[in-house]
Amino acid sequence: MPRYRLTIEYDGRPFMGWQRQAHGPSVQAAIEDTLGQITGHVPTVYGSGRTDAGVHALGQVAHVDIEKAMTPFRLSEALNARLRPHPIAIVDCRIVDERFHARFSCCGRSYRYVIRNRRARLTLTEGREWRIAKPLDEAAMAEAAAHLVGRHDFTTFRSVHCQAESPVKTMSSLSVSRNDDRVIVRAEAPSFLHHQIRSITGCLAMVGDGRWQPSDMKAALDAKDRQALGFNAPPDGLYFVSASYPAEYRNS
Amino acid sequence: MPRYRLTIEYDGRPFMGWQRQAHGPSVQAAIEDTLGQITGHVPTVYGSGRTDAGVHALGQVAHVDIEKAMTPFRLSEALNARLRPHPIAIVDCRIVDERFHARFSCCGRSYRYVIRNRRARLTLTEGREWRIAKPLDEAAMAEAAAHLVGRHDFTTFRSVHCQAESPVKTMSSLSVSRNDDRVIVRAEAPSFLHHQIRSITGCLAMVGDGRWQPSDMKAALDAKDRQALGFNAPPDGLYFVSASYPAEYRNS
Repeated sequence: MPRYRLTIEYDGRPFMGWQRQAHGPSVQAAIEDTLGQITGHVPTVYGSGRTDAGVHALGQVAHVDIEKAMTPFRLSEALNARLRPHPIAIVDCRIVDERFHARFSCCGRSYRYVIRNRRARLTLTEGREWRIAKPLDEAAMAEAAAHLVGRHDFTTFRSVHCQAESPVKTMSSLSVSRNDDRVIVRAEAPSFLHHQIRSITGCLAMVGDGRWQPSDMKAALDAKDRQALGFNAPPDGLYFVSASYPAEYRNS
Repeated sequence: MPRYRLTIEYDGRPFMGWQRQAHGPSVQAAIEDTLGQITGHVPTVYGSGRTDAGVHALGQVAHVDIEKAMTPFRLSEALNARLRPHPIAIVDCRIVDERFHARFSCCGRSYRYVIRNRRARLTLTEGREWRIAKPLDEAAMAEAAAHLVGRHDFTTFRSVHCQAESPVKTMSSLSVSRNDDRVIVRAEAPSFLHHQIRSITGCLAMVGDGRWQPSDMKAALDAKDRQALGFNAPPDGLYFVSASYPAEYRNS
């Protein structure tokens, strides 16, 4: 029974998130049910990470075992044809070693958060960016972000619903840059807590508009207290960009 | 009666185009009717150029005279609040000299066409890019595009419905570049013929996928015959980027 590795792009707006839910559409269920139509058997699709309702993906990675062997090309073509009208696309599909696990083998996850810093409301990018009208100081935001890089107890930036065993995580990199009227937050880590990036981005926005100083981010981190949080950024601007795996899986 | 210059962004999908139509929604009508709600009088809004059904704008420019004087800030705020749910936003508003005319003063127009060169269908950018599955040779496309720069008779690339007096136009620049799996065509000219960019982009795609040689673009231009056209690219990937005006209007 071959194992397939899927790279998946989706628009998160119509979904309750990645994970299958009893009540409401999810990306996982859409793919699993479509695989059921193709193979006659609904398999479990394992994602590298869950995304919340409204959060998008450019390169979510998942694996699935399929009883009926097909070439990766045929499988991705069949999935893309039948996933309509869901805004989900399989952008890459390959057969992988059976030891590969999209979640447990994953050694790095990369997210991007796009803030549109302008007064006018959004048109072409509605639901896919977070608009902030007040001018943001991206240099101050970058200074604040630097306090979070490294291994820390991220309790302040963790959802009360987070199921991770420990609030201690290693932020490999966290950068803030401006491109015209877009301010982009990029985060990389082996793994993240639930709501971590949205919580951090909410606080970065408070630094950007002057309500917080960059050092307030350090104080919030040190507080290790959810009450020290500014607020969560909305899901609109958040993109799961990529998942990385050990070299042994790179060419499979 | 002050004259206002508006810079307008819109998602072209729900509209029959920029221009007011007897049957169906248009960007011009949406803005005019909204101004009517604000001022009690429906004025005429003059655009720098028409865009077709499904064509988007990042920086369409228009002017309008309004009987009830308002600050540009108040006018754009009122427009943006009331234009909902239309995907139209006023991204800049200023008072201009009464000699300024969005169409007749305009000395340069800039468009961008975004091709997504991949096999998987689109999700986040559905309706806002043209997907081409076959690998495109952007260097060959750039070579073909170079044949069109300068002053030429563009009859081949002109819609039968074009109302321009002459098919002779000056293409100031026409470039093709690749950014990962996006191939972007950028066109600048004092003015364009109806369907000119979509006709040119359709031919560039034929060069990109190998059906045409770059020299076939020159032959098509020289034919001065609509029958020599490959085909029109769809509106999805086309963006009106900006309109430029003589220096005397730059700071108004």
